[in-house]
Amino acid sequence: MNIYKGRVVTLNLEEIPLPNGNVAKLEVARHVPASSIVPMTDDEKQILLIRQFRPVIGQWAWEIPAGLIDPGEDPLTCAQRELEEETGWMTEKVEPVAAIHTSIGFTDEVIHIFKGVGLKQTQKKQEATEVIVEKFCTRDEVLRMIANREITDSKTLIGLFYVLLMPATGN
Amino acid sequence: MNIYKGRVVTLNLEEIPLPNGNVAKLEVARHVPASSIVPMTDDEKQILLIRQFRPVIGQWAWEIPAGLIDPGEDPLTCAQRELEEETGWMTEKVEPVAAIHTSIGFTDEVIHIFKGVGLKQTQKKQEATEVIVEKFCTRDEVLRMIANREITDSKTLIGLFYVLLMPATGN
Repeated sequence: MNIYKGRVVTLNLEEIPLPNGNVAKLEVARHVPASSIVPMTDDEKQILLIRQFRPVIGQWAWEIPAGLIDPGEDPLTCAQRELEEETGWMTEKVEPVAAIHTSIGFTDEVIHIFKGVGLKQTQKKQEATEVIVEKFCTRDEVLRMIANREITDSKTLIGLFYVLLMPATGN
Repeated sequence: MNIYKGRVVTLNLEEIPLPNGNVAKLEVARHVPASSIVPMTDDEKQILLIRQFRPVIGQWAWEIPAGLIDPGEDPLTCAQRELEEETGWMTEKVEPVAAIHTSIGFTDEVIHIFKGVGLKQTQKKQEATEVIVEKFCTRDEVLRMIANREITDSKTLIGLFYVLLMPATGN
């Protein structure tokens, strides 16, 4: 049963059959997929993070650039577009890192994560409701922020962990 | 404006003032907080993961044990309770790892993550709609699953990254 159909979220009460023969009755938030990117300088010594005010939690958060995928847009193009719009920097060298389920118990939202290397400055196009400051950080600074629990956003932590701590896996 | 008030999710259309003077109009899923745990054997050489069928995405997922915090319950107690209910194993040695925002753009959901060391077998109490198989994995097996992108659940990836790859930070 559909409760609400919105721009970003569609809320349903769903009855879904399970492998054990039972039926799960769940509140499900069907969500538009999103895309994000870990932007790095050419030498991969610095990461471009953003500090963004997030009205839903009423707090500033450290994040990697990200946003919703437009209808028909591919995840990689979306990541590049959001990077440029939010920070005024762009990159052409982009490779996939991972795709994550943000909260598997109540939403089907997937966030694609990319790594971008080699940044060129262009023009910011922030929306009126985006409150964003960008900052270049060294690898050590980012690892210290993670160790100090200053970063709490899931896509950001996972993107940084893969890129900084699992380089042997193709990132 | 409230759209729906459910057991787990409350969906609102909210107008939230921003630091730049504008007002954000957002679809917001207010969500009950949750708690999770990375359960390890006494020697910290094996991790107890679960393989769970997740109806919202129609797929089986590798996860750490987790669940919603009951009213008045503290996150640590919840993590211990969910571990025992879902796997039939319990641990008394528990320490906090992190608290994450699952999807900061549309929900205020927080998932607390703990590390538990030293497991004793008790009794499973799975719910009829929980389809769960537990599996002990070595550190190398878990790191290989992460490298192969077999784990896509955000709390699970972040808990495992902190415990396995950032031990110097107190975990």
